[in-house]
Amino acid sequence: MARINESYRKLRAGYLFPEIGRRLRAHEAAHPGARVIRLGIGDVVLPLAAAVVSALRAAADEMGTPQGFRGYGPEQGYDFLIDAIRENDFAARGVALERDEIFVSDGSKCDTGNIQEIFGAECRIAVPDPVYPVYVDTSVMAGRSGAAGDDGRFAGLCYLEANEANGFVPDPPSERADVAFLCTPNNPTGAAATREQLARWVAWARATDAVILFDAAYEGYVKDPALPRSIYEVDGAKECAIEFRSFSKRAGFTGLRCAYTVVPKALTGSTAAGERASLNALWLRRQTTKFNGVSYPVQRAAAAVYSREGLAQTAEQISFYMENARLLREELGAAGFTLFGGVHAPYVWMRTPRGMGSWEFFDRLLAEANVAGTPGAGFGPAGEGYLRLSAFSTRENVAEAIERIRKAFAS
Amino acid sequence: MARINESYRKLRAGYLFPEIGRRLRAHEAAHPGARVIRLGIGDVVLPLAAAVVSALRAAADEMGTPQGFRGYGPEQGYDFLIDAIRENDFAARGVALERDEIFVSDGSKCDTGNIQEIFGAECRIAVPDPVYPVYVDTSVMAGRSGAAGDDGRFAGLCYLEANEANGFVPDPPSERADVAFLCTPNNPTGAAATREQLARWVAWARATDAVILFDAAYEGYVKDPALPRSIYEVDGAKECAIEFRSFSKRAGFTGLRCAYTVVPKALTGSTAAGERASLNALWLRRQTTKFNGVSYPVQRAAAAVYSREGLAQTAEQISFYMENARLLREELGAAGFTLFGGVHAPYVWMRTPRGMGSWEFFDRLLAEANVAGTPGAGFGPAGEGYLRLSAFSTRENVAEAIERIRKAFAS
Repeated sequence: MARINESYRKLRAGYLFPEIGRRLRAHEAAHPGARVIRLGIGDVVLPLAAAVVSALRAAADEMGTPQGFRGYGPEQGYDFLIDAIRENDFAARGVALERDEIFVSDGSKCDTGNIQEIFGAECRIAVPDPVYPVYVDTSVMAGRSGAAGDDGRFAGLCYLEANEANGFVPDPPSERADVAFLCTPNNPTGAAATREQLARWVAWARATDAVILFDAAYEGYVKDPALPRSIYEVDGAKECAIEFRSFSKRAGFTGLRCAYTVVPKALTGSTAAGERASLNALWLRRQTTKFNGVSYPVQRAAAAVYSREGLAQTAEQISFYMENARLLREELGAAGFTLFGGVHAPYVWMRTPRGMGSWEFFDRLLAEANVAGTPGAGFGPAGEGYLRLSAFSTRENVAEAIERIRKAFAS
Repeated sequence: MARINESYRKLRAGYLFPEIGRRLRAHEAAHPGARVIRLGIGDVVLPLAAAVVSALRAAADEMGTPQGFRGYGPEQGYDFLIDAIRENDFAARGVALERDEIFVSDGSKCDTGNIQEIFGAECRIAVPDPVYPVYVDTSVMAGRSGAAGDDGRFAGLCYLEANEANGFVPDPPSERADVAFLCTPNNPTGAAATREQLARWVAWARATDAVILFDAAYEGYVKDPALPRSIYEVDGAKECAIEFRSFSKRAGFTGLRCAYTVVPKALTGSTAAGERASLNALWLRRQTTKFNGVSYPVQRAAAAVYSREGLAQTAEQISFYMENARLLREELGAAGFTLFGGVHAPYVWMRTPRGMGSWEFFDRLLAEANVAGTPGAGFGPAGEGYLRLSAFSTRENVAEAIERIRKAFAS
């Protein structure tokens, strides 16, 4: 008799974004003429950079010729892309990585979920709160938690509250945790950790033999050159951290699918017998057995992001979105709202006006201003009382959304 | 303290194909002038069909325009592709599927591994022997087995021997099994199950409330119109089977990455409390939480496989490979070798000459004929004494390989 994985039944009904999608569709069905401005799901809107399109076309042509055709590639990615990553994203910032420390994949969402497979079931997972829901949901699905309590928190997980008092960058766990997610620049709060804050995390992980799962999907948005882009800029991080990077937001690849994960060879976990085991070797085994590499034309497209034109064109896209973030932050701020983030990340974290609940404000924003945000509570209980606004939109939509929010809610 | 997943330590050192790669590289390093013909790993060699290349280019262009750009798509795939699949692969064979029963993915390797996540840890897995190594390795990695015995079989798994006596199509398990992999046309033996054989499997699964994981990655190679292409051609299969399909071999997508999995809504598993739970709903939750959909241009390319030109061009590719298979089968057969498969699948399953072991024959074939096959024992203990030859090669290479094998080993 085939029994199901009972852990799935602990999850709330739906993943956050499909739930928002359902409410949006219901609103639009009820108000057929309404032009809803979507600042909810964090999805890019600008077309792919010209350098990326050219690379995609060239790779398509190549694949149509006997000489240029490529079948299965290395599961870990092609060297042409890995070398571009090493040089541009790491060597340029003083971090030396070897080729086989980088694993190209089709998305950080997949990798941050799948990485858990290489850890023992007994590991206790720490997650910031609020946080990208995938960390929590995949931990629950993997059987690493108990049931959800009335506060929405799952028993067995270690929650690290990110709030106004700590600038939305949580301290390392004070109770036992073996594997800890950390996302900076942060989704959803937009906060970016300083070098000193990361150094505290690295010191904690080394002292407790824990592993940090460092999600840097938004590093391309860091403006201040003094802020770290990679956790490996902190000494000792190679012995305690895995880093996730993505082309989704940095180069508009949400529809193309390319990301990568760094698992340093210096990083080990403990076996039951107390020996050390290479996490790089385990992840290699996981990826070669359960993954078949990223589409070749997409890897060529990702490599084109690092060309001179690609770097310039994608930098321009990022500037465009960050100007949106600045407008949201400053104009809504001037209108009396309290906002955070939006400086080193494309998200603005807005305190709900008049103490409204997150979902209440979400629903009213939709009903009264035809603007869709993301309710902070969807990212965890500590997100209650906030709403995330995404800067991924056109300038016109951002300006119009600001105007509508001001009209409907400014006191 | 971060503990590793101990189950990984039960695996043999490497996944089969990387091990073959290592031996090939060592051989080539030792014999710099040798021109090795690779009939080992089952990877296509013909360039992408013109219709596929055009679709890739057109989608790349689209993504470079504000109107045509697409960000995140539905995790389950775009309707334009799902509808083409439903119509061509199923409705045309009398099988009605709904849109939300089809999940587009980046590969059957991923899906056959990941699907296990929706089943309880207590499920006993049945696998044919010999078999595509991913089924066994991913079961072991997920903790569903004990240690490997001296015969290479893992305790706790239920092995179903495929041998000359049963025409390499195993009977359903006679002992308890809850989830059973079945691959037809088969990799590695090339055997294709008849409707009657599949009906026996479906009857077994329904009688025992088991789920069949039906891997039909090679269905495009079935020549006899009377043979089933889908398990859903058998009555009652929607209540007991998940089907995996791939564009890899059917349209040369090994480097592009596109596949799909069918999880009928009539299919349920049991909860611990004895209620029925939809496996479609569980897989939807898994995919929306841990996967972000297939690259948009790749989905357009896959849809182009179903265009009039695409169907004609890919049928021609399949005919080309199957002519290779015929040559291998007939000419090596005429030279005194014993061979199976190669009629409804691009693999020829060759009995090793003079009772040699699989790996011994692999090594000697490489050393004495500069031909790389895949040792049957790499697919499981029951593959001992066989070698898999792949028809994915150029005509010249196949002819030359036949000649070399004949010279070196014909008695």
